[in-house]
Amino acid sequence: MMTSPDSLHIKFMKEALAQADSAAAKGEVPVGAVIVCQNRIIAKAFNLTQTLSDPTAHAEMQAITSATHAIGGKYLPDCTLYVTLEPCVMCAGALNWAQIGTIVYGASDPKRGFTTVNANLLHPKTEVIAGILEPECAQILNSFFAKKR
Amino acid sequence: MMTSPDSLHIKFMKEALAQADSAAAKGEVPVGAVIVCQNRIIAKAFNLTQTLSDPTAHAEMQAITSATHAIGGKYLPDCTLYVTLEPCVMCAGALNWAQIGTIVYGASDPKRGFTTVNANLLHPKTEVIAGILEPECAQILNSFFAKKR
Repeated sequence: MMTSPDSLHIKFMKEALAQADSAAAKGEVPVGAVIVCQNRIIAKAFNLTQTLSDPTAHAEMQAITSATHAIGGKYLPDCTLYVTLEPCVMCAGALNWAQIGTIVYGASDPKRGFTTVNANLLHPKTEVIAGILEPECAQILNSFFAKKR
Repeated sequence: MMTSPDSLHIKFMKEALAQADSAAAKGEVPVGAVIVCQNRIIAKAFNLTQTLSDPTAHAEMQAITSATHAIGGKYLPDCTLYVTLEPCVMCAGALNWAQIGTIVYGASDPKRGFTTVNANLLHPKTEVIAGILEPECAQILNSFFAKKR
């Protein structure tokens, strides 16, 4: 059976959503990420800023660290990051240093997303695909914050 | 004896330079950082991107993680970061999340410094002081890159 790029994006975004579910279960803002290389997941992570009392512990940051360890190098040009929420400025800067090949994100972040500041924070070769499973990715965040209120 | 703010800045920047020296000794791009709270150093770190094969392992990122662990909270509004080189976009984004009180840096980074992209990447309450021991902070980088060539 052939798999289209879109169905692959959906498959891997579902994995990122599963990571976000794990974050929610720990009371963390539910954002999840996976990094894929040659159709294989080489890193999975979810937001742990509360648990670790560490503002740098975003899903993407941990996924980058994990992926670079997995491949034994600082650069990820052949890898795709799937993340449920648009990366922030910090994560965009990190993804720039990592020279990530592609970023696929679900929900936009009109408050802290990197595109609200400057859409050119990424490496010039990085491709961006937005809106994959957007409703599901936004819904898990909305449910989380609704419960908080 | 009274100590002026300037002499304190120089004292702590010398500590950041000592961290940069440690980076150079490991063959890392020599950037060092310390975080100070109530005139006490609560975190020290130097760039470890090569050693860890991790593009997120900048001196500032490690210092933030270490400082937030030290104080047991995600925010550093009463702390000052001393760093030998102007922070990049990633580190500026992290310092924004941490709501760092003050950033004191030595050398400017005309290639990757956050001010080259957008000087407003930081938290609105963060104060920035540039150019403390600038010649020394630039020199250690210049020597490192001269040897590399």
